[in-house]
Formats: sequence, C-alpha cells, structure tokens
Amino acid sequence: MSKDLSVSILIDFYGQLLTEKQAEALDLYYNDDLSLSEIADVMEISRQGVRDFIKRGEKQLAEYEAKLGLAGRFTQIKAKLEDINKLVKTLRVSMGDKEELNKIESLVKTISDKV
Amino acid sequence: MSKDLSVSILIDFYGQLLTEKQAEALDLYYNDDLSLSEIADVMEISRQGVRDFIKRGEKQLAEYEAKLGLAGRFTQIKAKLEDINKLVKTLRVSMGDKEELNKIESLVKTISDKV
Repeated sequence: MSKDLSVSILIDFYGQLLTEKQAEALDLYYNDDLSLSEIADVMEISRQGVRDFIKRGEKQLAEYEAKLGLAGRFTQIKAKLEDINKLVKTLRVSMGDKEELNKIESLVKTISDKV
Repeated sequence: MSKDLSVSILIDFYGQLLTEKQAEALDLYYNDDLSLSEIADVMEISRQGVRDFIKRGEKQLAEYEAKLGLAGRFTQIKAKLEDINKLVKTLRVSMGDKEELNKIESLVKTISDKV
C-alpha cells in the first residue's frame, strides 16, 4: 500500500462520513504516519483488519469525492488565491504600502485558512 | 412546509448523496418551485409520498452539513470575496486602471463561480 498524500485532504473533507474505525485507521496511517503493525497495536485488531479498514475507507472517500468534487473545488480555489497574493505583492512594489492591499492580503489569508 | 432557501444551497452541495427519488422531489420543490400536488403528478406518487421524500431528504442534507460544514465554509468564502472586490474598486479609484487589479478581479470572479 503506498501512502497517497491526497488521501489526507479527502480525510479532512469527508472523514466525518466514515465509520469510527475507518476514520481512526486512516487518521493514524495518513496523518500520524504510523505503520500497519503500529496501528494494529493501537486499535487492538489484526494487521489485516487495519488494512481492510484503510482500503474500505479510501474507497469511500474516493466515492464521496467522485460524487461531490468539493476537495477538487477547494484545491482550485487555493491555487487562485496564491495568484491573487502574487498580484498584490506586485502592486505593493509599484504603489508602495497601501491599506487596501494589506486588507486584501489579510482576506486572502482568511479564505485560505477555510479551504 | 415552508420553503427554506438555504436548502437549495445544500442540494447543490450534497444532493448527489441523496436517493434518486429524494433528490428529484427536492429539486422540483426548491429549484423548480413546484407545489406538492404538482410534484405528485410528475413523480406519479401520492402527495404524502412527496412530502415524505422532501422531509427525509431535508433531514439528510442537514445531517451532512452538520457533519461536514462545507456549505457554511463556502458561504463565508463568498462574503470575503465580495470584500476583496470592494477593495479592488477602491484601489482602482485611487490608482487608475492597473492590469494587476483587473487580474485580481478576474481571479475573484473565477473563485466565486466555484463556491
């Protein structure tokens, strides 16, 4: 099993829709970077049991994203927000320090924290 | 039954997770503004059947939002994007037409279309 980083994002979006065990196994595997054996110890189940929870959970997350596409939408938004930040920096060079530019930068940061 | 406009937003976010019948009844009721009787005719079921699909669908949508909160996050983002747009307009008054401002405006529009 290879650790796909994008699964972490899907856990963040749809993790609440998984069963408690699936969510726990995925969280330990992807966010805490534990091995299957370590997770088996923590959850007091077999290594194969852990593998099943993770596989099933990954499948569910992928299905939610295929249906709703919200993680994809947020990722696109994040990229555009970075573009806005670059433009604000360019404007600051040409116009000097403007209160409005600071405010835009702060709003972009607030939005980024939500996506 | 009162038509809560925010249900339309939840349909947009989580409608794909409902059963086909629930999604159809809710779509006709909230997006096409049909009456219960009209929907009953379209779906060839009783008026009470329509009411049940809608009630059950609304409950599911509310549960998804309570768990995931994504519609709420998008709504907050939308408000912040409008604030950015206002600041860009203010800057345009003080600085004249700048290419970077046009680009920021266009990026904000692209993001708004995704939320």
